[in-house]
Amino acid sequence: MSDGINSIMYEFGAGKSAIRTVFEETTKLRKQGRTDFWDFSIGNPEVPAPPEVNEAIVDCVNTYAQLDMHGYPPNNGWDETRAKVASCLNRDFGTGATAESVIMTGGAAGALTATIASLTTPGEEVIVITPYFAEYRMYIQSWHCRCVEVPSIPDTFQLDVDAIERAITPATRMVIVNSPCNPTGAVYSPGSLLALGDVLRRKSAEYDRTIYLLSDEPYRQICYDGVVNPWVAGYYENTIVVYSFSKALSIPGERIGYAYVPPTVKDQERVIAAIMGGQRACNTITNGLFQRVIERCVDLPAPVEEYARKRRIIHGGLGRIGYRTTRPDGAFYLWIRALEPDDHAFCRRAAKFGLYLVESTDFGTSGYARLSYAVDDWVLTSSLPAFKALWEDYGGYTW
Amino acid sequence: MSDGINSIMYEFGAGKSAIRTVFEETTKLRKQGRTDFWDFSIGNPEVPAPPEVNEAIVDCVNTYAQLDMHGYPPNNGWDETRAKVASCLNRDFGTGATAESVIMTGGAAGALTATIASLTTPGEEVIVITPYFAEYRMYIQSWHCRCVEVPSIPDTFQLDVDAIERAITPATRMVIVNSPCNPTGAVYSPGSLLALGDVLRRKSAEYDRTIYLLSDEPYRQICYDGVVNPWVAGYYENTIVVYSFSKALSIPGERIGYAYVPPTVKDQERVIAAIMGGQRACNTITNGLFQRVIERCVDLPAPVEEYARKRRIIHGGLGRIGYRTTRPDGAFYLWIRALEPDDHAFCRRAAKFGLYLVESTDFGTSGYARLSYAVDDWVLTSSLPAFKALWEDYGGYTW
Repeated sequence: MSDGINSIMYEFGAGKSAIRTVFEETTKLRKQGRTDFWDFSIGNPEVPAPPEVNEAIVDCVNTYAQLDMHGYPPNNGWDETRAKVASCLNRDFGTGATAESVIMTGGAAGALTATIASLTTPGEEVIVITPYFAEYRMYIQSWHCRCVEVPSIPDTFQLDVDAIERAITPATRMVIVNSPCNPTGAVYSPGSLLALGDVLRRKSAEYDRTIYLLSDEPYRQICYDGVVNPWVAGYYENTIVVYSFSKALSIPGERIGYAYVPPTVKDQERVIAAIMGGQRACNTITNGLFQRVIERCVDLPAPVEEYARKRRIIHGGLGRIGYRTTRPDGAFYLWIRALEPDDHAFCRRAAKFGLYLVESTDFGTSGYARLSYAVDDWVLTSSLPAFKALWEDYGGYTW
Repeated sequence: MSDGINSIMYEFGAGKSAIRTVFEETTKLRKQGRTDFWDFSIGNPEVPAPPEVNEAIVDCVNTYAQLDMHGYPPNNGWDETRAKVASCLNRDFGTGATAESVIMTGGAAGALTATIASLTTPGEEVIVITPYFAEYRMYIQSWHCRCVEVPSIPDTFQLDVDAIERAITPATRMVIVNSPCNPTGAVYSPGSLLALGDVLRRKSAEYDRTIYLLSDEPYRQICYDGVVNPWVAGYYENTIVVYSFSKALSIPGERIGYAYVPPTVKDQERVIAAIMGGQRACNTITNGLFQRVIERCVDLPAPVEEYARKRRIIHGGLGRIGYRTTRPDGAFYLWIRALEPDDHAFCRRAAKFGLYLVESTDFGTSGYARLSYAVDDWVLTSSLPAFKALWEDYGGYTW
């Protein structure tokens, strides 16, 4: 009997991401009262939300009338919230944002699905840069497009613009970039973005079709050592920016972010309407209360110093043992060269030592593991002996 | 130049629903400081959320640690929230729910899109009963299925089971019912649901394919005069239940609801996995804080007495003037026979009298208008002279 279960959705639901699989494993351990393990799986900040966030929640509850807080906001978000976000974007990036060009969404993820749904047609191609956040693949495939993986430059993990150019075909509709990059921590250089903009402009003209650049920027403010994340939309006119407040404010569970369509985007109004349609089709609409909270908290600084300290602990600690890792310029992940070529086997063996990492295959690259250092300092420091034991168990790199 | 804008999404975004169009019009009037109008457009309860909701928000903020409130919940929701919802379902309907069979979503709308995405394949047919909540059509079309409209029985707006049977084809995958019904207020009779279950069972066997019943129940608790909304899933085994806390708790802007897959559903586990996949593809994941609030507030009674009073005011008031309307058994909408056959023209003329209703064409039926009485009592009472003036302007029914 035909059961009607959509095979793509079933695979997404049954398969889960490697990140979520590890996270659910460690959640089980926690529930069993186990403490003899270290969970580096998910980018779920243990750095608490700034006290201003909880203060703003209570303040909103005490301030707003029913309809202005718990009632239906417009589908694209409260006018005041969007105006506030737009004015911050203008102050920080001089980008000509208006309240109308900002669409509040259920996190950056919601903005990504709404944008992919609305700016692609089944059968088109979307380019991603490996290693990459694996959910992109799901979002692209959900809308019946093909996910085309283009490797970044080995070791630096910068954009390989020549490779991107070679991957563009008459079916290419979009390129997704993510700077600072999850999982490598790379911050794309202005030079590479300039070159990318040139390529996209040239290829758009050659194939007589708009190729969009979708810039996923949840880690925008989390950069170290004076590195500044470039404003990607400044390098290419047809860029859609998506953002989440999850990381800078440590509120990933509250699912709030936005899509921003700069005035440089061709047919800006039509693109905005389409993304609002995608948001309506997906129902990735965000909650009213947290939009009010964001109005008050949009300017709070990200806890960069804390993450810099954590990076120092784990990057230094693993380096002293002998591990080869990135020294991320941004975000809060360490990209570790696995001790054997099979990253799945490496992560399974690490788990035997209580170390829960995410295998790199899920990010479209083999031979690495991702470690999230958005955890308490003691998790980082206390894990080092286990990393040492794992190292000794292997006898260092075997390849 | 091919701009890549997906035409379905553009239409959804640019077109908006008639409900939202009227709502945005009245929002503009409000911002201009105008008070000479009555907004009956959207089911946006002006009955405030019970004080326990705001108390629960503050309590959660004061109680939970970072990761248990603002951190990432599992994609299907906090275990404790799902367990609480399941135990309420079991107490009220004896349905064998477990925490695993409940998936928290961004409102009922999110549950609808995730379910339609996951239990259909492009090209299949989904049956809806006119008049119906127009967003169903968008959700169905987004996933490349055909929306098949079957009229309800005139005047009673009960299910026309024979007509549904005739509409079922080898491509039918799903039937959506909504009891109490938005916009008519009809509560489906147990007899009609029994008959519907028989038809779906017989047709599933005939075509050797599962036909799902998708029961959209945001108004489940809002029934009048001792009418009890039947537990739809008790009448047909392959029923998926979707629910929103928007209406009973007056928190539509907070976007929280769930999908529930009863143990009677064929391949229950696979169906749950598929819906979780659909939810992941749509990113219609709900926020963590309000899940905690729901844990505390799931049992609060809906303000049925208040809505019953409002129904009395507007149903009695319009009836005395001469309008022919439903006397709803549930939900909070009055379905008004338009004074002329063209419901669009009728609503435009009503707006000239300051009366903002939604035309019935948007619900798949002509010749009616929908009035939401989830508004303050004074809006209802003070509108009656305007309704009288509109009546006199027409000279009563013209058809």
